[in-house]
Amino acid sequence: MFSERILMGPGPSNPYPEVTAALVRPVLGHLDPEFLGLLDETCDRLRSVFLTENPLTLPLSGTGSAGMEASLVNVVSPGDVVVVGVNGLFGERLCEVASRLGAEVVRVEAPWGQPLDPEALLSAHPDPKVVAVVHAETSTGVRNDVSTLAAGKGDALLVVDTVTSLGGIPVEVDGWGIDISYSGTQKCLGVPPGLSPVTVSPGARERLLERPTSWYLDLGLISRYVGAAAGRTYHHTAPISMIYALHAGLGVLLEEGLAASWARHESCGQLLQDGLEKLGMVLVAPASHRLPELTTVWVPDELPSGLGEADVRRLLLNAYGIEIGSGVGSMAGKVWRIGCMGHTARRRNVELLLEALGTILDR
Amino acid sequence: MFSERILMGPGPSNPYPEVTAALVRPVLGHLDPEFLGLLDETCDRLRSVFLTENPLTLPLSGTGSAGMEASLVNVVSPGDVVVVGVNGLFGERLCEVASRLGAEVVRVEAPWGQPLDPEALLSAHPDPKVVAVVHAETSTGVRNDVSTLAAGKGDALLVVDTVTSLGGIPVEVDGWGIDISYSGTQKCLGVPPGLSPVTVSPGARERLLERPTSWYLDLGLISRYVGAAAGRTYHHTAPISMIYALHAGLGVLLEEGLAASWARHESCGQLLQDGLEKLGMVLVAPASHRLPELTTVWVPDELPSGLGEADVRRLLLNAYGIEIGSGVGSMAGKVWRIGCMGHTARRRNVELLLEALGTILDR
Repeated sequence: MFSERILMGPGPSNPYPEVTAALVRPVLGHLDPEFLGLLDETCDRLRSVFLTENPLTLPLSGTGSAGMEASLVNVVSPGDVVVVGVNGLFGERLCEVASRLGAEVVRVEAPWGQPLDPEALLSAHPDPKVVAVVHAETSTGVRNDVSTLAAGKGDALLVVDTVTSLGGIPVEVDGWGIDISYSGTQKCLGVPPGLSPVTVSPGARERLLERPTSWYLDLGLISRYVGAAAGRTYHHTAPISMIYALHAGLGVLLEEGLAASWARHESCGQLLQDGLEKLGMVLVAPASHRLPELTTVWVPDELPSGLGEADVRRLLLNAYGIEIGSGVGSMAGKVWRIGCMGHTARRRNVELLLEALGTILDR
Repeated sequence: MFSERILMGPGPSNPYPEVTAALVRPVLGHLDPEFLGLLDETCDRLRSVFLTENPLTLPLSGTGSAGMEASLVNVVSPGDVVVVGVNGLFGERLCEVASRLGAEVVRVEAPWGQPLDPEALLSAHPDPKVVAVVHAETSTGVRNDVSTLAAGKGDALLVVDTVTSLGGIPVEVDGWGIDISYSGTQKCLGVPPGLSPVTVSPGARERLLERPTSWYLDLGLISRYVGAAAGRTYHHTAPISMIYALHAGLGVLLEEGLAASWARHESCGQLLQDGLEKLGMVLVAPASHRLPELTTVWVPDELPSGLGEADVRRLLLNAYGIEIGSGVGSMAGKVWRIGCMGHTARRRNVELLLEALGTILDR
């Protein structure tokens, strides 16, 4: 028998039922006219969700981390200056990816659990090639301010990680002047992990490297297959079934409406965060920059006798079928990360978790 | 209504029914003990199919081309000599990927449609870092001899592309002394596209670069999550549903037995190739090096009046729901590529295709 979890960790979330159904659509060839129509529609839906007109908007054939790498490998040459906001694991990862590409990385830090200072990001270097920042830090539950960065960034390309924000809180690629953004399917889009939606502004597209070191993630080549109006050039075999799933998940999201989805995430996050505080627990992120879809909470100093933090998670998993996440990096063992994303973002899931946690913690 | 195709192009093939069923298993978290057990079992099954004991054997989170890139980016530094066998599109791709990594690429060519000369590969350079060759050239239907290369390769790492061979014809990673091999799920494994099984010998593992330019494809880091006995380190979120599918597909294959699967592919290929010749058509690959799972056939000089080669494929698709592939590269417009792989490799599919082709071509 298969276990069925309520996925309230930092991702994956539970897929929408329509997504599960789409996974078993009969497989079509990657050049089949019917599949190409569905792929085009998927890209259209991505544009609607990213709130962008960018023609170069597509699902990359890898997970969110592949999107991160693609967003840098296509624009960064050795010696280029890349300013990175670092207040969590994914900011660190941006530094590591850029550094491997030979970039001169300029770190702009804030403590884990605190938001970045946009002014500090803009004044870190007089003329960077790229300014890269994580919108929703999955490691800490902090929302970084990215909407105002474009105004002061000069010629720099603004790269924004929207892996945990897209679909859950407002993301306005065109409105905020974002040049390149990448996301993941397994968070607020309610689709299993495996693809990374990516969007590139026309201006950034003109600055894509002609021959990046990665062939697999070469957005110029990929765009000659995905999204080409005519004369598609084969690049690699598209992950057909996962694209069906993404297509369906975006359909559910757009039918609900972006604003309604944001409101649902907001309301579930608020219910969860209020409930945790009522249980006497302390939230990590400051209220002004707290993500509704991903909540970090300090593990209480005093747990019922004999229980460690991992035991609490294990009890939730085994007795309730609820997964929550542990802390990572400097927060390992100190916090829990509770996701409420995509199809998981339902009040009944939050209520059950709070009830279960209250019982286990004896509060 | 969804169209249901008989997928007889160069891939994807039709997934096994058990694979389709596995795609909709409830999603588990990537650190859930149940999922980790299934992932371990998937790696075990991959070892059985690759005929290897290599501990570093795993499904990479990308398509076959990601496997190709991973196989090179983890071992090739700028200036390294990489000998590549080139007798088709995927040999060309190996050159392109290696060249982007700064390798000095030594090409060993054979005409498209002819096999490579193993001696020429071994004598092309006195001390290469890598010798890379495609086992089953999907662009031409030619099988290259790779079983004897290890004996004469010296210190070079032998990298073999088994995308279209694994599961369809014998592949013996340990027996043939292959150092690194990558495959794809959507050919003879009968699983949708999206993952790339990769295996690395212990000797090659010791020579993996400590910090390759690609973070996403860094096999050293990935192996700390996949296949780690204890203390798994999160790298990226595993594509859960696709791994369910691969796990199931490998289960079907191993239950049938490798030898039985090879025999089924052989028998279908023979039936197809005999049938095409009976229709008066000419096969591209020489009999000695002809793949059973992927057949290339010259488009007849004389087609029924008014029909071009693309019309024939369109008629097959629209009237019969059968997909076959066009030629690529120097063979574009000149050949058809007919796959008979994985679950598609059934005599009834071959018989229907031959019947349909005979009707359309009026032969």
